[in-house]
Amino acid sequence: MTDKETGAMRDAAQAMFDEALADQRHEFGSFFLSRFLGMRIAYENDSCIVSFEVKPPIYNPQGSLHGGVLATALDISMGHLLNHRVGAGSTLEMKVQYFSPARSGLVRCQSGFLKQGRSIFFLQSHAYDAAGETLAHATSTWKLLKK
Amino acid sequence: MTDKETGAMRDAAQAMFDEALADQRHEFGSFFLSRFLGMRIAYENDSCIVSFEVKPPIYNPQGSLHGGVLATALDISMGHLLNHRVGAGSTLEMKVQYFSPARSGLVRCQSGFLKQGRSIFFLQSHAYDAAGETLAHATSTWKLLKK
Amino acid sequence: MTDKETGAMRDAAQAMFDEALADQRHEFGSFFLSRFLGMRIAYENDSCIVSFEVKPPIYNPQGSLHGGVLATALDISMGHLLNHRVGAGSTLEMKVQYFSPARSGLVRCQSGFLKQGRSIFFLQSHAYDAAGETLAHATSTWKLLKK
Amino acid sequence: MTDKETGAMRDAAQAMFDEALADQRHEFGSFFLSRFLGMRIAYENDSCIVSFEVKPPIYNPQGSLHGGVLATALDISMGHLLNHRVGAGSTLEMKVQYFSPARSGLVRCQSGFLKQGRSIFFLQSHAYDAAGETLAHATSTWKLLKK
Repeated sequence: MTDKETGAMRDAAQAMFDEALADQRHEFGSFFLSRFLGMRIAYENDSCIVSFEVKPPIYNPQGSLHGGVLATALDISMGHLLNHRVGAGSTLEMKVQYFSPARSGLVRCQSGFLKQGRSIFFLQSHAYDAAGETLAHATSTWKLLKK
Repeated sequence: MTDKETGAMRDAAQAMFDEALADQRHEFGSFFLSRFLGMRIAYENDSCIVSFEVKPPIYNPQGSLHGGVLATALDISMGHLLNHRVGAGSTLEMKVQYFSPARSGLVRCQSGFLKQGRSIFFLQSHAYDAAGETLAHATSTWKLLKK
Repeated sequence: MTDKETGAMRDAAQAMFDEALADQRHEFGSFFLSRFLGMRIAYENDSCIVSFEVKPPIYNPQGSLHGGVLATALDISMGHLLNHRVGAGSTLEMKVQYFSPARSGLVRCQSGFLKQGRSIFFLQSHAYDAAGETLAHATSTWKLLKK
Repeated sequence: MTDKETGAMRDAAQAMFDEALADQRHEFGSFFLSRFLGMRIAYENDSCIVSFEVKPPIYNPQGSLHGGVLATALDISMGHLLNHRVGAGSTLEMKVQYFSPARSGLVRCQSGFLKQGRSIFFLQSHAYDAAGETLAHATSTWKLLKK
């Protein structure tokens, strides 16, 4: 990286870190990792929406949004919807298909139920870029935790 | 969280952040996100090993390692192996199955090829906890990038 | 099984076999396996619809539609859509999530594109029972074959 | 197809059908579909092995083993292992990655546990061709049925 890119990376990272520490909650809706990654979590009709800005500190070595960060956002969108509508669960499995790389702008993950069982739940989530193009799609299987 | 937990979270996060900024590389083997998450990347025989310590800043709201962080480590272990042995690729899809939660200790992800094609590659990776128990398993499909 | 069930199984199987041999085509739209399994393949707007009747000869040992037969129908609905709209491809991977067992009645699998690339295509398909309940959901990744 | 190919298809199909009707069991180890597809089910150490011969009646329209039939064999190898070692279960989800097409010869699917839980089980299975090359790999998640 050039000195300028290194400086921009450092500034972006510092802002992410300050945001993470600006709040001390560790609960559904806001926790250290969600704040550090700049993820805003909201509910709309039958879905949970997780949105965040793509920035160099969450790039992969090839200079685009790391697939693991996108997987994290998709996972949060599904786990939060399950918790919001039914109760806390644990992910048995998740599959993500990646369609295009993202280098900047707001990414928005919108989840929904594929099927609600009694103890097993099936969800999906779409990730969209700022232009509304689909970046990725996830499906997952969850087990409701005993109260 | 108690004040003590909040203090411990803040200290752990500060150490992660310092580690991330201690180096300015952004390349395979060391990049901002890998350093922030404390991930060490090494190659051994036919696999790539990504290891990291489970700490509160990478917890989910329920107080155990976030599945998205584990997915990130598994993804890195597979993408780095492909890059190391063949060349840089992009993930077409990845599936992770989660077996048990992890709350502390070193996690170790070890990847390998399921099949090497000409332009399409299939990989897997196992995540183990410090006691050697399998925490998760991932499979993925990659497309080699044109040089 | 009772004698009556055995007789019904035999009759159903004979009808399936006769249907398979009533035509000699082996091409997209009609091939031995699709005819034997009683699968009708049609195109509607942006999807391909594969429908078939659930009968004892396609049961699993537990007495409901075998998951492999449902996977076959979902696969056909996606591969035929790709062939119809773009060209023949090969499945790199497919994941099926199973929501409920089916014991009788018409099953209908309806596919669609998640994303169309240049050489890589992402599709999904939903399986519905006669009452319109979702039985299963599949996602898949395809590589277009060179002409 | 040529007349000769049509005749060979008819003969192979008749043999499959006769095999399916030669036995009236419908249980784990032998059921109509497993016999029709020529699948032999055996247990060896910690795995279940499902083997069958690739023949034109189980081809896809492109003239190689249908992915749905291979998925069926992989599914059987995992579901039978679970039933043999623990008890009958239902598939929550299965993912299959396809490495190479098969046109003839014996295919052998060998399953194993990835992780055994209390009610949730994770399995995998490899499919090999007659030369020992890996054709496909499956992972799946199962829920044990209540007795």
